[in-house]
Amino acid sequence: MSVSLPDVPDVHDAALAARLQALLDDKTKPQGSLGRLESLALRIGLILGDEAPQLRDPQLVVFAGDHGLAARGVSAYPSEVTWQMVENFLAGGAAVSVLARQHGLALTVVDCGVRHAFAPRPGLVDAKVGWGTADSSVEPAMTPAQCAAALEHGMAVVRARPGNALLLGEMGIGNTSAAALLMSRLTGLDIADCTGAGTGLDAAGVARKVAVLRQVLERHAAALAPLDALAALGGFEIAAMTGAVLQAAAERRVIVVDGFITTAAVLVAARLRPHVLQRCVFAHRSGERGHALLLAHLRAEPLLDLGLRLGEGSGAALAWPLLVSACAILREMASFGTAGVSRRAAASAQTV
Amino acid sequence: MSVSLPDVPDVHDAALAARLQALLDDKTKPQGSLGRLESLALRIGLILGDEAPQLRDPQLVVFAGDHGLAARGVSAYPSEVTWQMVENFLAGGAAVSVLARQHGLALTVVDCGVRHAFAPRPGLVDAKVGWGTADSSVEPAMTPAQCAAALEHGMAVVRARPGNALLLGEMGIGNTSAAALLMSRLTGLDIADCTGAGTGLDAAGVARKVAVLRQVLERHAAALAPLDALAALGGFEIAAMTGAVLQAAAERRVIVVDGFITTAAVLVAARLRPHVLQRCVFAHRSGERGHALLLAHLRAEPLLDLGLRLGEGSGAALAWPLLVSACAILREMASFGTAGVSRRAAASAQTV
Repeated sequence: MSVSLPDVPDVHDAALAARLQALLDDKTKPQGSLGRLESLALRIGLILGDEAPQLRDPQLVVFAGDHGLAARGVSAYPSEVTWQMVENFLAGGAAVSVLARQHGLALTVVDCGVRHAFAPRPGLVDAKVGWGTADSSVEPAMTPAQCAAALEHGMAVVRARPGNALLLGEMGIGNTSAAALLMSRLTGLDIADCTGAGTGLDAAGVARKVAVLRQVLERHAAALAPLDALAALGGFEIAAMTGAVLQAAAERRVIVVDGFITTAAVLVAARLRPHVLQRCVFAHRSGERGHALLLAHLRAEPLLDLGLRLGEGSGAALAWPLLVSACAILREMASFGTAGVSRRAAASAQTV
Repeated sequence: MSVSLPDVPDVHDAALAARLQALLDDKTKPQGSLGRLESLALRIGLILGDEAPQLRDPQLVVFAGDHGLAARGVSAYPSEVTWQMVENFLAGGAAVSVLARQHGLALTVVDCGVRHAFAPRPGLVDAKVGWGTADSSVEPAMTPAQCAAALEHGMAVVRARPGNALLLGEMGIGNTSAAALLMSRLTGLDIADCTGAGTGLDAAGVARKVAVLRQVLERHAAALAPLDALAALGGFEIAAMTGAVLQAAAERRVIVVDGFITTAAVLVAARLRPHVLQRCVFAHRSGERGHALLLAHLRAEPLLDLGLRLGEGSGAALAWPLLVSACAILREMASFGTAGVSRRAAASAQTV
């Protein structure tokens, strides 16, 4: 596959980490008492290379595409819901539209390959690679050229946007199947452990989905390398997200990962450039089966655990204010010295 | 004890609950796919008695007081940190100051009985009942008259404030001890299960704290009724919060509960008026030992689990945007019909 991927260097800086930790420890609170918010502040500081990090112009980008495999009945909803929901995102009526408004997140929808002709309008990027992927139970979902084009589109979308934070969202009927296939192939976990109800299959529906996906994996048994797996099993929106993650990581943007499908794109990106994971903040643990296992595989600790299973970037948007808080703590809280607050007593003074 | 507590009637309304659930189910998303955000929307709708709930003028009130028991070495920090932190809240440098600014929460600090003379200023309410409570290892922490005064002050603070949401915060060196004592007395759980590190005791310090608290419980073995226990074992800020919770519940405000100490005040209030719990949203599960058990006792499911153990209302402030999101989902999301989005296929169409 002919695609030029950016370098993603190691951004860990032990001296900066020590300075950030010392700043956090000197804030007017018992050490560590802000829990995960403190480790989040440390991470954002390291990503942005700044002791006083400030998130600017956050971009919530929803990558949309259709899936040939949806014809095999792997989703509770018909494929036309993909384009209908894109219209809903743009009209402002979807969950992610509401949440992006609440938090001042710039919302962009990227048509990576929806089976529909959209009228051009603000907020919609035309990056259509095809009219839905091919049915991966019959042939590879994408040709190598298509997969490369989707990756390039994802990189270009990030390059064209301002700010230092990218929130990932996606829409595509059938894409929990594509994500489960990629997860199983790249982690070695059994497909049954990677497959869930998606938008709402019942137990029998999930069992049928697993059977279909197992056949797909067998058909593409040779697609082992990350980009080969991505082309054979993935989707246009997942490939574009993979490109977007690589580009955002190369630019040292903070990447806010949403649910199961966006995490699958991060998995592919991390197999190509492992330091991508340094730039990721995992927003939540989804209710979709497979996500918890995938997060554990990536050693990722998500911020929220609210049983969300919608996608769209809704979980990333919900977690966003926690990132803003983490930066604000680091930038705005007083230190013990300047606030005139007594430090803790020495251990010997604790005796009763 | 001569104190008049407000009625807190049952606000459950099965018809309204059904209408709220139908509205949520008709939003453009798979049913239930917004997880806990949907149950939160339902709860807020029921509290406010509104199918299109809107949170107005949220008030974050930090109740501060000192504890005679702190002289027994039950905290890692000296008592003067209470007034120093009150100054820090008012100067804008504490965690809760930073978070309240971020979320547009009106921040009020109530001096319920800090051992310090504060200069009057905006944002500080003088409701001082005494210069710290008495040492409960020797005598009741409060006289009945003091406890009644603190309860009245808490009710008055809420009555004087606008809006339909109260976020609870507290500050008081020694108050994890008071909270643990109340928890043990009112739930019957052993004091060792209710006692944690507070601001940062080591294991030996916690063991000493448990031993002190066990003596305190024995000394006040007869203080079994909620108000008797509150007076003997509690603190000025905990009694004032109890009053504030009762008043806010009577007015059908949404009560956002922070960590261990605020939850202990809710426990006392719920023993007096059980329907208080209908009005409560539990912001987070604290890292303080005892909080998880207390939440379980109250059958409360908190929104966040970030290992916070600071108090001040910091966890309530961090969870606040989730409440705003829940209302926005209900008010602003499109329905399937108006957005022209196809509903899920019938179960029979899901077959492969």
